[in-house]
Amino acid sequence: MVARLTPDQKVACSIHEILILMDAAKGLEVPGETLEAEAKAFFDSAPPLQNSDGITQQLDQFIQRNSSPSTRRIVCVTSGGTTAPLEQRCVRYVDNFSSGHRGATSTEYFLKAGYAVIFLYRKRSFQPFCRSLPDDPLLECFKPTDESNIQVCEAYSEAVKRAVVDHHNAVAGGLLLKLPFNTIFEYLQMLQIIAMSMRCIGPRAMFYLAAAVSDYYVPWKEMVEHKIQSGSHLLDVKLIQVPKMLSMLRKDWAPLAFCISFKLETDSNILLNKAGAALEKYKMDAVVANELSSRKEQVVVVTSAEKVTVQRDKNRSDNVENPLIKLLSEKHAIYIEHSGRCV
Amino acid sequence: MVARLTPDQKVACSIHEILILMDAAKGLEVPGETLEAEAKAFFDSAPPLQNSDGITQQLDQFIQRNSSPSTRRIVCVTSGGTTAPLEQRCVRYVDNFSSGHRGATSTEYFLKAGYAVIFLYRKRSFQPFCRSLPDDPLLECFKPTDESNIQVCEAYSEAVKRAVVDHHNAVAGGLLLKLPFNTIFEYLQMLQIIAMSMRCIGPRAMFYLAAAVSDYYVPWKEMVEHKIQSGSHLLDVKLIQVPKMLSMLRKDWAPLAFCISFKLETDSNILLNKAGAALEKYKMDAVVANELSSRKEQVVVVTSAEKVTVQRDKNRSDNVENPLIKLLSEKHAIYIEHSGRCV
Repeated sequence: MVARLTPDQKVACSIHEILILMDAAKGLEVPGETLEAEAKAFFDSAPPLQNSDGITQQLDQFIQRNSSPSTRRIVCVTSGGTTAPLEQRCVRYVDNFSSGHRGATSTEYFLKAGYAVIFLYRKRSFQPFCRSLPDDPLLECFKPTDESNIQVCEAYSEAVKRAVVDHHNAVAGGLLLKLPFNTIFEYLQMLQIIAMSMRCIGPRAMFYLAAAVSDYYVPWKEMVEHKIQSGSHLLDVKLIQVPKMLSMLRKDWAPLAFCISFKLETDSNILLNKAGAALEKYKMDAVVANELSSRKEQVVVVTSAEKVTVQRDKNRSDNVENPLIKLLSEKHAIYIEHSGRCV
Repeated sequence: MVARLTPDQKVACSIHEILILMDAAKGLEVPGETLEAEAKAFFDSAPPLQNSDGITQQLDQFIQRNSSPSTRRIVCVTSGGTTAPLEQRCVRYVDNFSSGHRGATSTEYFLKAGYAVIFLYRKRSFQPFCRSLPDDPLLECFKPTDESNIQVCEAYSEAVKRAVVDHHNAVAGGLLLKLPFNTIFEYLQMLQIIAMSMRCIGPRAMFYLAAAVSDYYVPWKEMVEHKIQSGSHLLDVKLIQVPKMLSMLRKDWAPLAFCISFKLETDSNILLNKAGAALEKYKMDAVVANELSSRKEQVVVVTSAEKVTVQRDKNRSDNVENPLIKLLSEKHAIYIEHSGRCV
């Protein structure tokens, strides 16, 4: 696609350099060097991540605690959608729909399977152990007994207790580390830090990339500072493609890790082909293919060897994440064994 | 601004008719008939609101309960940001930043001032009585006492109790009706239903329009059905202006109501002029002008007679919404008196 730049656009109006870079790589199979230049341009242009030292320290402690003397497996679960701001002092942004249900539920089953979990989640998305609770559990699950005392409603009593107890045990027990993000800039900067921190555990690391990551963004430096004015009849927003960081993760950030990415489509006709293409292009160990309308009932795990359909056990009011995590955990165990390492 | 349509765009690629309509009204002061045609086009194109009969019934009961035999004032508080979907089976959307803090806090003070409140809020935005609690009050304010019992942490004990008790009393007492939305389509459809339902109480109705409403949208019928594919290097999203429904509210939906709108800007240099222009253009009774960085400290209430700066009382760890609602409630009382009606 040829970029047509119109000089009077208020947004992303002078993205020439990056577009030239991208046009050079138009043949889809982006050569490594170009991707690295794109990734560098993305990170250089991003606003600095707040508290990055603190995050690195938390990660190092968490990984250390779960590595020595034990050799626990550690998974980084990403969850929820990322935002692409349209203004520096952000009022408007492009967002991806994702409740974070998949990531939160999977986190519970990973913990059950003996993993330590780094949960990289969108602020205000679903949290582990809370999936059977209403949106606003404090206001909806509790009631007053008199003017100054409250109690949990009987219908939610067990679910509320389990949420608080299980969540607390996982966090206080050092098995669950929660790191929140909002923007695509924060997400990718944090994913990079996490991956670099997890390099030391080699194949015992898993990435389970369930977050709905923006495909497009406006580079920070090209963004208008103030709120876009609403005088015009038409708003024309030009966004450029986010560099394919899955390749960076696989190649540079954590080359020994077991990597699972997700493919969500609304059109089932193109889903499996797209999942297969992603598997090959980004050299993932598996791609979980899910279709928007049936994603809570079934998914297909696509690997280079096979396509396995995983379904929710309807008789046991189960979640599809239960058999999915079992399958991936088994595949990860085989992967570690084959890698012939014991880090 | 002249619309340049590029035939190969995937989104909003054939919005000719609406643009012709809008071009005809380019002189900014939209003639009534054109606005009505635009509004009609918006509603005709919107996906049908789910459970609209149920909402109307809830509203009628709520208004009836607060109108007879009492003559309580009723305010519709709108809160949070609206989304403008980019795909019919929505994965991506343009969103407006708004935590909903202003609307939720104002609701508390309106209740305190004796109003009944219809709280039209974005799902997962801030809720009344919860502003001093952390993002995730269940997981952050409670702790286990043993493997199967929980209690509230002492630091949050009072805030948690007050939230549950005060919220419950307002809802169960028939003084607070909560109606959630996500999209700009849902928001405007619900606002219209609410306004029509409130016509019967004449000047006793107030609209306090604190929601951050999308200025631009993609008409439903022009939207692609499936997820936009990420193959292109550039995504060009063309959105058209949302019809100025404030004029419809003022003119047709609830002509006797006391109407307050909000103007948020990040650039303080243009704020008051824009607020003044909105006051005149939409014939609001007052416009609350707020600047993004200082909005929790002070706002300016702009009316045709004056500009009143309202500040938070810092010595009393107060909110700016406290003096703001006092001022507006007084102005509303005078408005009712002057209207010479007792509905």
